[in-house]
Amino acid sequence: MARARRAVGRAIEELPARHDGRLPLVLIACSGGPDSLALAAATAHFARRGKLRVGAAIIDHQMQSGSADVTESTARVLEDMGLEPVISRRVTVDRAGHGPEMAARLARYDALNDIARQTGADAVLLGHTRNDQAETVLLGLARGSGTRSLSGMSPRHTIDGVQYRRPFLNVTREETEEICRAEGLDPWHDPSNSDTTLMRSKVRHEVLPWLEDHLGPGVSNALARTASVLNADADFLDEQAAEFFRRARLDPAASSSENLELDGGAVQAAPAAMRRRMLAQACVAAGGETPTFERLSALEQFAMGYGAAGPLQMAGKVTVWRRRADKHCAKGRLEFHGTA
Amino acid sequence: MARARRAVGRAIEELPARHDGRLPLVLIACSGGPDSLALAAATAHFARRGKLRVGAAIIDHQMQSGSADVTESTARVLEDMGLEPVISRRVTVDRAGHGPEMAARLARYDALNDIARQTGADAVLLGHTRNDQAETVLLGLARGSGTRSLSGMSPRHTIDGVQYRRPFLNVTREETEEICRAEGLDPWHDPSNSDTTLMRSKVRHEVLPWLEDHLGPGVSNALARTASVLNADADFLDEQAAEFFRRARLDPAASSSENLELDGGAVQAAPAAMRRRMLAQACVAAGGETPTFERLSALEQFAMGYGAAGPLQMAGKVTVWRRRADKHCAKGRLEFHGTA
Repeated sequence: MARARRAVGRAIEELPARHDGRLPLVLIACSGGPDSLALAAATAHFARRGKLRVGAAIIDHQMQSGSADVTESTARVLEDMGLEPVISRRVTVDRAGHGPEMAARLARYDALNDIARQTGADAVLLGHTRNDQAETVLLGLARGSGTRSLSGMSPRHTIDGVQYRRPFLNVTREETEEICRAEGLDPWHDPSNSDTTLMRSKVRHEVLPWLEDHLGPGVSNALARTASVLNADADFLDEQAAEFFRRARLDPAASSSENLELDGGAVQAAPAAMRRRMLAQACVAAGGETPTFERLSALEQFAMGYGAAGPLQMAGKVTVWRRRADKHCAKGRLEFHGTA
Repeated sequence: MARARRAVGRAIEELPARHDGRLPLVLIACSGGPDSLALAAATAHFARRGKLRVGAAIIDHQMQSGSADVTESTARVLEDMGLEPVISRRVTVDRAGHGPEMAARLARYDALNDIARQTGADAVLLGHTRNDQAETVLLGLARGSGTRSLSGMSPRHTIDGVQYRRPFLNVTREETEEICRAEGLDPWHDPSNSDTTLMRSKVRHEVLPWLEDHLGPGVSNALARTASVLNADADFLDEQAAEFFRRARLDPAASSSENLELDGGAVQAAPAAMRRRMLAQACVAAGGETPTFERLSALEQFAMGYGAAGPLQMAGKVTVWRRRADKHCAKGRLEFHGTA
């Protein structure tokens, strides 16, 4: 518990001062499972010591029978712990165009953002553990991803102005279960693992335990450590690439955001690590999606060529054209057309 | 075979022109195993077409009985293939201070460098396959490494001025075995896997096959792809960090290389991804070793503090001292003392 409290302490130490002079308010995003119940217990400590106001948000995805009962009893446990306010929200998961995990996540963050704004919360704390982090890295690896996906979940991020923090990325799932036992809490164990994909469930229950047996018990720890190193790297790389992208643009802020032009020479001269990222950023800036590895490789090869060519079709209805060299661009230009 | 030849073609296409006007000479580092025999066969094609001179270097580590026979018969196969020169070298592996794999590797590269210089070779080609690459990434992951180790083996690198290339990082071990069958070559299969550590052997024969069964057959491919993305990232990050390191140094080239000073404020202000790397580079520049994750974390924490402190002991007999702020350095300075 001491370690868990220190982890929460570090996560909340830099909360900005409030304009209304009240104590900062953090919300625990609570599923009723051991991770988020333990997080609630560790954070409630700071409320009792007068450092913080601590509330909770419980999202009922209505994806299995009995979810309303779980929500109800979790809310009561959190109120008994002294959390205030405790807000439950029932959401409808719209699966149109998304896999079930992504659809549930979108619905969940929408609701959490809404509750955070409504309560004036300064941050939302998420209960993801080191085990979740190790699973995320292994899943990214199985997909063949780059630095960003291998960096797993970020300890801090912001969605639409709402701050999210994950204090427990260095706390294990077993430790959260111990905390629950020690605090006399009876966490809910999702029998169907409905909030996990088939693949994540496999990684959690089969792959990681097997790897711990065969490569040594430090594997989960090693994966989580990898994530923390790569997180810093991915941040730096993305920031640098945004700068490369900005400098290569031929249409500074003037043109509509759905059409943009890059200097072909600047793209070709960029280091490989920057080239792929600036091309991906151009697709997104034109209203498209972050390209897959294969599409991005095709776009990179396209960008390294000369002479007029196109269109190259990218996901999210973005087309890319390569234009001949002219007096402004000695190596031609790349045009990204969105169709929004 | 066509794919293998194209891979070799790409690896050799940028060889610099020779001063003596002769065709470029590449050496195949050949163990007699399927990977390097297939590489020899694919590269010999370019010699027959008059594009290249192709020779071979065979290193006998003398680490198991019969190794002299394997060396001898491999040399004959390569000569029959038309390779010229084919040079065998017997080396003694000195294990003092190293694990067996590292000791064998050091002895091997010493001998290869020597043969490359003696023959005036323009590059040495290594037969590592996509499978080797996947194993390397998984091993790095099990250790909890950062971007550089996860990026696996580089397709090109230089040791003491000798260029090494790995054309087969996208060719599988199975493909090299098919090539050997198709070419009527009878590769040697190391019965003891003596050139692999226990851990690598485990990853190759147990872990990767199991992961392919449980996560899908694309796992090796995904790991190798991860390596190629991360390789470009690691190069960029190291280059940028060298620049951060250079700018933070207070003793530009003037002082001896075993003692150096960094501006504490510059270290603290650097992005996390750069801070860790510049501190690691400082340890190496002071004559020490590349720090482990734990030692580097300790050094980073030390560097983020204020006031006089030290010494912090780093591997390779480097000590680090933190000096109080003065009129030149508002946030103090870090002194790295080597004891070479």
